[in-house]
Amino acid sequence: MIILKLGGSILTKKDLKDPEVDYSNLNRIANEIKTALDNKSNNSELSEGLIIIHGAGSFGHPPAKKYNIGEAFTEEQYPKKRIGFSTTQNCVKKLNTIICDVFINHKIPCVSVQASSFITTKNKRIKSFNLDLIEKYLNEGFIPVIYGDVVLDDDLKIAVLSGDQILQFIAKNLKIKSSKINNLESKKEIILGTDVGGVFTKNPKKYDDARHIPKLSSLEEIEKFDSTTNIDVTGGMVGKIKELLKLADIGIESKIINANEPKAIFNVLEGKKVRGTIIKRDN
Amino acid sequence: MIILKLGGSILTKKDLKDPEVDYSNLNRIANEIKTALDNKSNNSELSEGLIIIHGAGSFGHPPAKKYNIGEAFTEEQYPKKRIGFSTTQNCVKKLNTIICDVFINHKIPCVSVQASSFITTKNKRIKSFNLDLIEKYLNEGFIPVIYGDVVLDDDLKIAVLSGDQILQFIAKNLKIKSSKINNLESKKEIILGTDVGGVFTKNPKKYDDARHIPKLSSLEEIEKFDSTTNIDVTGGMVGKIKELLKLADIGIESKIINANEPKAIFNVLEGKKVRGTIIKRDN
Repeated sequence: MIILKLGGSILTKKDLKDPEVDYSNLNRIANEIKTALDNKSNNSELSEGLIIIHGAGSFGHPPAKKYNIGEAFTEEQYPKKRIGFSTTQNCVKKLNTIICDVFINHKIPCVSVQASSFITTKNKRIKSFNLDLIEKYLNEGFIPVIYGDVVLDDDLKIAVLSGDQILQFIAKNLKIKSSKINNLESKKEIILGTDVGGVFTKNPKKYDDARHIPKLSSLEEIEKFDSTTNIDVTGGMVGKIKELLKLADIGIESKIINANEPKAIFNVLEGKKVRGTIIKRDN
Repeated sequence: MIILKLGGSILTKKDLKDPEVDYSNLNRIANEIKTALDNKSNNSELSEGLIIIHGAGSFGHPPAKKYNIGEAFTEEQYPKKRIGFSTTQNCVKKLNTIICDVFINHKIPCVSVQASSFITTKNKRIKSFNLDLIEKYLNEGFIPVIYGDVVLDDDLKIAVLSGDQILQFIAKNLKIKSSKINNLESKKEIILGTDVGGVFTKNPKKYDDARHIPKLSSLEEIEKFDSTTNIDVTGGMVGKIKELLKLADIGIESKIINANEPKAIFNVLEGKKVRGTIIKRDN
């Protein structure tokens, strides 16, 4: 089984007045996914199922920031906060609808899964998330498409649930059989498609001397890098790595790749080697 | 608590090439809901919570019909059927997103709830539907907005789940306390806003001599009416009545009103008398 996260940064355009989809990237990636699915007999992991998770990008971050979703608030502030929840939920749903539209145009049998319809958190971490239906959709040959969302939180009332945390939870908890004959669990391949080719010692978009890190096994390794230009500037990379290290702790390895690079998604779905950073604990 | 169904026929325009929202109706109804919510101290039932359910109208019925969702199919037909599922799901999600947008513009703290993310059916009837999260949203002062959708079905693989069946299930199974002090269950008011003022002996849009039925307690009563112009022509009215009779059987009465009539929704949310048909068993 392959769990593919598509970062909001590659599907949407940043720093515009209104949120906008990057249709050029989206169409290219949809085409790569469809082509890999048509060839899926080439890769047993893909033929065992594909889950796609996408970020919120410029659709989700501005409203979540405007209404300070995830920060403590008073009872008097709740009416405004509720509208912030409604607005953010509807914005990320719009992005998901556009993504599914493009997938459907490419004949990808996607099924949208809305986190806020059935997931809750406690202090920003997933508390309840029933995976049964996602498993059913996979078994029926669908490709679940789940995305970063706002959810109810036991402690904070409302919180942002990132696509990265969703990825981590699904990778950790979903059990799919590799075939109907034996009872072996399907091996999971975890791929994060971002707008950089993995982890670098500095921000590679700004510094020519940024060095690529092919394998990462702890946060301490990152701290050794240049402190003023740490990787946090490249769109919350540390948050991603923290989620992936939780997977590494239980023996699940993952890979960060550059989804802006043509054919990177296709190659990774085909089981081919793609340049990136592997997150894996040392044994 | 009030459970309000807004029929697809009043929120969307019929018989157009592409699905279209009836913004005039939608904005008017959103305004009526918001005004009633601002006055909710006038009506204890509204102050105990509001759930809105909407139909799929011209967004859902054409793709569901095109792909024969809900009819048996062979394994060879499954790939096309899956795309039919994806397409229908995305179309009704678009309608829901537009409705939520208008609600948010009117400062209604709505939260979209996607049936296909957590509900399944067996032979077209709801099999699993966990109401906990809807209850939580209500307790937090949100207005859940749930809608007719496509879902996985144990027998048929995929099926259409109508807003009317969702209404019936929630009305029957959701238990909300009327106050935090005592343990009394909130009385439920079930309202169906359609494009006619209830049940008539004939289609009132076509026949001047159609008589209005103020109260209905069985399907047999309907069969006595003019057989060639029975009420089924007014958009699946018999299906609605069947769901409502299930509620009547357990003592829950409901009312069908004309949501095209200005102030009908407002008045009903205010607890005022509105012309319509009450569905209730004789005692």
